[in-house]
Amino acid sequence: MTPTMCPYLAATAAFAAGKDTPRDFLERCLADLESWEPKIGAFVALNLAGARAAADAASKRWRDGTPRSPIDGMPVGIKDIIETVDMPTEQGSPLFVGCATQRDAASVAALREAGAVVVGKTVTTEFASTTPRGTRNPWDTSRTPGGSSSGSAAAVAVGAVSAALGTQVIGSIIRPSSYCGCYGFRPTVGAINRGGSYDYLSQSTTGPLAATLADAWQVAYEIAIRAGGDPGFPGLMGPPQAPAAQMPRRLAFIETSGWPLASPGAKHAIEDALERLAAAGVELRTRDNDARVAAVEDAVAEARKRSNGINAWEGRWPLNTYRERDASKLSEAALGRLKQAEAMTIEEYRGLIAERAHARRLYAELGADMPATISLSAPAAAPVGIGWTGEPACTVHTSYLGIPSISLPRLRDESLPLGLQVAGFEHRDADAFAAAGWIESVLR
Amino acid sequence: MTPTMCPYLAATAAFAAGKDTPRDFLERCLADLESWEPKIGAFVALNLAGARAAADAASKRWRDGTPRSPIDGMPVGIKDIIETVDMPTEQGSPLFVGCATQRDAASVAALREAGAVVVGKTVTTEFASTTPRGTRNPWDTSRTPGGSSSGSAAAVAVGAVSAALGTQVIGSIIRPSSYCGCYGFRPTVGAINRGGSYDYLSQSTTGPLAATLADAWQVAYEIAIRAGGDPGFPGLMGPPQAPAAQMPRRLAFIETSGWPLASPGAKHAIEDALERLAAAGVELRTRDNDARVAAVEDAVAEARKRSNGINAWEGRWPLNTYRERDASKLSEAALGRLKQAEAMTIEEYRGLIAERAHARRLYAELGADMPATISLSAPAAAPVGIGWTGEPACTVHTSYLGIPSISLPRLRDESLPLGLQVAGFEHRDADAFAAAGWIESVLR
Repeated sequence: MTPTMCPYLAATAAFAAGKDTPRDFLERCLADLESWEPKIGAFVALNLAGARAAADAASKRWRDGTPRSPIDGMPVGIKDIIETVDMPTEQGSPLFVGCATQRDAASVAALREAGAVVVGKTVTTEFASTTPRGTRNPWDTSRTPGGSSSGSAAAVAVGAVSAALGTQVIGSIIRPSSYCGCYGFRPTVGAINRGGSYDYLSQSTTGPLAATLADAWQVAYEIAIRAGGDPGFPGLMGPPQAPAAQMPRRLAFIETSGWPLASPGAKHAIEDALERLAAAGVELRTRDNDARVAAVEDAVAEARKRSNGINAWEGRWPLNTYRERDASKLSEAALGRLKQAEAMTIEEYRGLIAERAHARRLYAELGADMPATISLSAPAAAPVGIGWTGEPACTVHTSYLGIPSISLPRLRDESLPLGLQVAGFEHRDADAFAAAGWIESVLR
Repeated sequence: MTPTMCPYLAATAAFAAGKDTPRDFLERCLADLESWEPKIGAFVALNLAGARAAADAASKRWRDGTPRSPIDGMPVGIKDIIETVDMPTEQGSPLFVGCATQRDAASVAALREAGAVVVGKTVTTEFASTTPRGTRNPWDTSRTPGGSSSGSAAAVAVGAVSAALGTQVIGSIIRPSSYCGCYGFRPTVGAINRGGSYDYLSQSTTGPLAATLADAWQVAYEIAIRAGGDPGFPGLMGPPQAPAAQMPRRLAFIETSGWPLASPGAKHAIEDALERLAAAGVELRTRDNDARVAAVEDAVAEARKRSNGINAWEGRWPLNTYRERDASKLSEAALGRLKQAEAMTIEEYRGLIAERAHARRLYAELGADMPATISLSAPAAAPVGIGWTGEPACTVHTSYLGIPSISLPRLRDESLPLGLQVAGFEHRDADAFAAAGWIESVLR
């Protein structure tokens, strides 16, 4: 059985023409869900009755010519770190089993306003951090799907939903998208309202994993215009449909600290892709021919360690209250992060965010003459084993820099999916999408 | 019965000397609480057994010479918009009666780490917005205590606690401090971690109301070094004890849009204060002799309307989910704000925050040659009636500008308390405190 995604926007013309309905679309997704779910464990909760009722309502709206949005009727999954009124929010933690919060998060409320059909809650690692909760990679169930948006990636990859919400503070959208062969979009930091998501960290962002680039954009856009960004942020900037593909004159290749870890297959795949982009006429900048790129590489070389410090300090609360409640229900990793936080001073934290701001300024300089930079989404295909969510070294810089990032499932390693990462500039998510659309057309 | 506050830091020398204990201090506060509470209704929940146990533990630490911090043993109140593990958090809303969240907010966890004694939850208006919940002003119980931190101000004013946490997005710390005659400190936006406070708005900040300037600083400082600021913010900057009083060479007087509303008594009081500051040698800048001040006055003239728009958009969620749950339990005001939000577009919001950023840049220019600006904290003493929390026109600019602001209970109107507001510059809370300390010494 080969995992096959279910693109949604492309299917809606048939709804408008009366040849298909969102309810029939949903039933096809649910058939995929039924056959895959026992093997991959992507969901922690389902509301199939609610999804069918929502799909019926959407079917009527498409029939009447009054869809609420282009994603009216789209089956979606919600990472289980984000509140839903009809299902518990367990945060991947034994401490929160069955925890019913009686409301939708801002992003979920917006999705429902847009007509989206919430199928279920997708598995997250504990507190969207490192400890996995059993989901398996549909391309090879002996392997991790990545994390922390583990269930979202696996569910989209097998077509159980057309899109699913994820969150990323280190590599939690881009890495699982790479491993599971779906599209991932981590918007500019602050671009999607995180109200009701148990995800408070300053470099974290909510974003979609999806069956196509266009589906990913649409999901993010429909949330942003209804729920806005985080308070004080302008929210996702860009047009009401996915920006059209546009050839960039220039791109930079960022090796990242993941390059020394990259597998021969991954190196070959990205080098081949770079050659094809160059052959198509793009000027490629690298650390060897552009001092600005070299400065960025240096500034993000320690991005993971510094991000871990920032996240530890910012995550001291609420972890300290959870330890107080029942330390036995926290992972060793969570207790370790808390210990790290408690050994830090506010001055250390201030130093870390000042360094981060400096790195962001250096990276922004590249934006003067290019729409995006590219990298591997991960140093290799998904590793074997489900006790670890894999190496984030190729994508932690996008979180650290607060920039939009897209994973295109256009590379292969060991005959398994591998993503090409297209990272943009703050608030220029649309430019990154336009470049990604063109890159995809070249690599198809 | 005249309301009398209970300063804490000044009392701790006696603890160290073995002449008094935090437990005895607490009992004196509880005696005030018992006699005042039936008249003013400052608390929505109390945990006296917990407070006594915490005070006993603090007494032992002072006796052993091992206090956790200068505020170890300080009796504090917590605005009921902020989570506490031992008492419900009702947000001033019938929808949340008895709502137990099983954890402390970041600020409360930090206060307990510092040894503070949490006495109870203080009354807040509904969702820390405009609809009052019955608290009365201890100086005249026919009058409002102000809001939204109504109970915090009243409780501090009568000495039931030495300090209480409040929050301010328009005027919710400075106004009740002015009306109730206590000290209020709204730090720079982002300076105190709001995790676990149901207060998401971009210009809102947590801060203390307190019996002295030094108590206010210490509470904010002890929280910040343990819990930090909001994620991504550097947190409250400044020394481990309240900055020493320092005469400023120059101050600006900001009339604000509240000036035309100011009572004759309030105008007389502030004009008299300005004369005394000038006589002591401070150079006073105003809209008439400094073009930068005039530019600030113009930029904040519409601060309230613009703040209302920003707050409405940012508050769309979670109000929309509360309306879904039970609209009958929301005030007309809350439903109105939601309606306003739903009529807005994200583009309008972007325009509002861009205007706000512009006003912040204009104000910051004043910071080049002065430590603070001064204003009335309110246009008059507390108005009669408890159906309205009073006029915020004199302090909305500090919220809009994101700047630190202090209310000194040093003026009178109608023989009732009135605050003098000392507003600082972003992250320069300590400079504002130093100036406020000196101003207080001149006006004493």
